[in-house]
Amino acid sequence: MFPFRVPGAAPIRPHGRAADEVGRLRRPFAVVVYLQSRDPAHVKAVERRTMDKPTHLIEFETMLLGRHLQLSAPRLRRNNQSLDRSAYTLLSRIRMEGPMSIGQLSEAFGLDASTLNRQTAAMLRAGLVERIPDPEGGIARKFRITEEGGRGLDAERSANISGLEKVMAAWEPEEVAAFAAYLKRLNTDIENLDGRPWPRP
Amino acid sequence: MFPFRVPGAAPIRPHGRAADEVGRLRRPFAVVVYLQSRDPAHVKAVERRTMDKPTHLIEFETMLLGRHLQLSAPRLRRNNQSLDRSAYTLLSRIRMEGPMSIGQLSEAFGLDASTLNRQTAAMLRAGLVERIPDPEGGIARKFRITEEGGRGLDAERSANISGLEKVMAAWEPEEVAAFAAYLKRLNTDIENLDGRPWPRP
Repeated sequence: MFPFRVPGAAPIRPHGRAADEVGRLRRPFAVVVYLQSRDPAHVKAVERRTMDKPTHLIEFETMLLGRHLQLSAPRLRRNNQSLDRSAYTLLSRIRMEGPMSIGQLSEAFGLDASTLNRQTAAMLRAGLVERIPDPEGGIARKFRITEEGGRGLDAERSANISGLEKVMAAWEPEEVAAFAAYLKRLNTDIENLDGRPWPRP
Repeated sequence: MFPFRVPGAAPIRPHGRAADEVGRLRRPFAVVVYLQSRDPAHVKAVERRTMDKPTHLIEFETMLLGRHLQLSAPRLRRNNQSLDRSAYTLLSRIRMEGPMSIGQLSEAFGLDASTLNRQTAAMLRAGLVERIPDPEGGIARKFRITEEGGRGLDAERSANISGLEKVMAAWEPEEVAAFAAYLKRLNTDIENLDGRPWPRP
């Protein structure tokens, strides 16, 4: 059953593809052309497009979202004293998991030790973390979040949430929840494929 | 009408809030407590929570998504020869809009000229863009994408889309489309608030 049936056009089933399988995708443009064209090359091109998921739209919009997360977010709020993005993510993980060594951070983030040494050195200088002996008696020293680090993390998170609330002022709570569920699913799918699950509260 | 009505509990309307307005939010926990408690402080706290949108979940998941975009994405694919994120976004904009000056890029991205001078210098060295006189006769020279830049952009985009298709293998096309629509709405809401609309194809 085609949701976008063109009057007068007969459904075609090139390459044995079931018409209702195509119809299920509900992509008006592709289905309309599909039904109108009998040129084999055209049908094949449209078929390929029809079978695609609109993953390219996710790619495009995540590129833009990444830009906003990196660049624009601080402009959307008054508080200029913000953590850089890597410190924010590292602190968030350390607070959720407790003190972590460079080796553990490297495993959790999939980053090499030299990158993490550089990032944690900046966090030490800013007083956001401190180095402590491993509470479980291991050889590697660990990074523990300081009170200042905790305050910085809370301030950054609150500022981010306020900014989002301003941005999403016209969204219904159900829409926000549905969008959050999709985001969570995408992230957990990436984490599973990557073998690096992120702890969730 | 409460979707999560607790048997035996009488609906209450503190502070004149209409019961169906609360019910519309469909947040089982808060509504259940709302109906069970008559302690004013408790009711007030729960009411505040009930009226909240789950924006904090968006904040948490966009933090993780940002991490994946920055760090993990290259690990999800074979192609190691990838553009850095700023070059990718700049090239994408320049291709869509045509040659742009530092001033135009600065306006479009909300970044200062020194940051853009640094990023475009790296792109010039990599042969991704070239400097040309302003085709419209302006004084400022402009950056035009080179053939190599175009190939690099296409390769990066294809690799990103392939990675996403692997990640989203279990998603239905309709789910991908719904998620893309939410992402687009969030991005355009940010762009509108920020006064910097991004051209869409």
